[in-house]
Amino acid sequence: MSLLVVGSVAFDSVETPTARRDDVLGGSAVYFSYAASYFTGVRLVGVVGDDWPEEHTKFLQNRKVDTSGLQVIAGKKTFRWTGKYHANMNDRDTLEVHLNVFGEFDPVLPEDFQRSPFVFLANGSPGVQMKVLDQVRGPRLVVADTMDLWIRETRDELMALLQRIDGLVLNDSEAKLLTGEENLVKAGHRVREMGPRFVVVKKGEHGAMFFSEHETYVMPAYPTEDVVDPTGAGDSFAGGMMGYLAEKNNFDSSTLKEAMAYGTLVASFNVEDFSLDRMKGIERADLDRRLEEYRKMLSF
Amino acid sequence: MSLLVVGSVAFDSVETPTARRDDVLGGSAVYFSYAASYFTGVRLVGVVGDDWPEEHTKFLQNRKVDTSGLQVIAGKKTFRWTGKYHANMNDRDTLEVHLNVFGEFDPVLPEDFQRSPFVFLANGSPGVQMKVLDQVRGPRLVVADTMDLWIRETRDELMALLQRIDGLVLNDSEAKLLTGEENLVKAGHRVREMGPRFVVVKKGEHGAMFFSEHETYVMPAYPTEDVVDPTGAGDSFAGGMMGYLAEKNNFDSSTLKEAMAYGTLVASFNVEDFSLDRMKGIERADLDRRLEEYRKMLSF
Repeated sequence: MSLLVVGSVAFDSVETPTARRDDVLGGSAVYFSYAASYFTGVRLVGVVGDDWPEEHTKFLQNRKVDTSGLQVIAGKKTFRWTGKYHANMNDRDTLEVHLNVFGEFDPVLPEDFQRSPFVFLANGSPGVQMKVLDQVRGPRLVVADTMDLWIRETRDELMALLQRIDGLVLNDSEAKLLTGEENLVKAGHRVREMGPRFVVVKKGEHGAMFFSEHETYVMPAYPTEDVVDPTGAGDSFAGGMMGYLAEKNNFDSSTLKEAMAYGTLVASFNVEDFSLDRMKGIERADLDRRLEEYRKMLSF
Repeated sequence: MSLLVVGSVAFDSVETPTARRDDVLGGSAVYFSYAASYFTGVRLVGVVGDDWPEEHTKFLQNRKVDTSGLQVIAGKKTFRWTGKYHANMNDRDTLEVHLNVFGEFDPVLPEDFQRSPFVFLANGSPGVQMKVLDQVRGPRLVVADTMDLWIRETRDELMALLQRIDGLVLNDSEAKLLTGEENLVKAGHRVREMGPRFVVVKKGEHGAMFFSEHETYVMPAYPTEDVVDPTGAGDSFAGGMMGYLAEKNNFDSSTLKEAMAYGTLVASFNVEDFSLDRMKGIERADLDRRLEEYRKMLSF
């Protein structure tokens, strides 16, 4: 089934303790789209400036990503983010943010995108995310991401958004910030009580937790020695998860769990190189192979 | 099979964000012994002062713990530790340490303890741990714990100890300190290359990782809302793990994995109350029940 994603499209500059890359392809909707494309066709809605190279668009199109919702604003620049990772490769400092065209992003869904059964609202303000929902007709499953900025600065809008979505994906620190709960199990369920039917709390190198009314579980990250660049790990996790759900056209309890596993594994590949470079080099069969290793790792 | 543990026996004073307890039963060998006692008989070697109440000894004896190796030093005091947990219940500050009799601990194994097939060297200097090994005859499996203090201050002795043991259990921060590696997967294998056949890296609320020459895996912590006091989590993990191995009289790959799961679950109960209070209230059947839930949680 078709999967719609609305979010950021960006140039990232990333510094790690051992290397750096400048102006590489990034953004939440880009990582998400590529990760989901192993499983299903993706409809991307985003905005770029006229500094955006056509090759990036072609690159996404070659992966079953429909880019007809990608607005190009003449005379303006694409969103740019610069970050630096600490030695532990888990914490990072944002050094520069130039929102550029993303600062005035007013998402417009092409007509054929409006009936998308699976919808993911990636990085963006709750106001922008709700504008997307206003344009979508009869979705089967709507999942959103959020971040500390929106929890701090647009809490009321975020609380309104939580009434309109089925699932929320957020980081451990964000779940604590949103609820004031230090215990992640309590925090996850408290977020769920704010509206969404299920909540996924991402813990970076420690994996992700799932919360629904009757289920609480944790899936560890796939252990890898080759963490080169964690940028986009959360978005590729969400892309793998939502892509699998859309492929199965199902989101019952067991399908959601398999989707959590696929999300975990797409993210585990993504962190093995800068930008989308590692994801470019793998196919669905690589994911399935790692899934079997992961399944074996978790059985005793 | 018999399981020997040598380590600290202590009075702990613990402060959490919501409660405190003073002078409660604690110490690495005590937590370990009780946790292992669900699975097998335990031989405890430790030292206390004459402020040690006989009821604590009886309490351990009632759980198949042989306390004939517990030295009582007249006119001196038992080891005392005071700690305070941060709001996240994972980090803590040590406020006071009075080593007292533990500062001059010279472990002497009763003759019938010397032939113990399963041996755990809990908290203690590598020098003291090696003194224990000098007294043990033909053990089948020797596993040790260590801590940041010994890594910093007695590194040479620790490196010598690593040549004489089969397994090492340590925290994530200690594995990083010992190896200089920030990536835990790399760190775990680097520790293994220093001598032991397998290494277990404990990650607190995020679970534990296992490393052998051909295996790398992670087991998440059992998700619980009721973290009351994390003191002794690592020692009860080790006790559950070693107790299960001793019960099975086996430490092949699949038995080690089951043992990691049992260790995880004993620790998950232990943190649900102060001191050994939660462990006192459960039986082996409670562990087995939670093991089935845990197994279900990890299968998809």
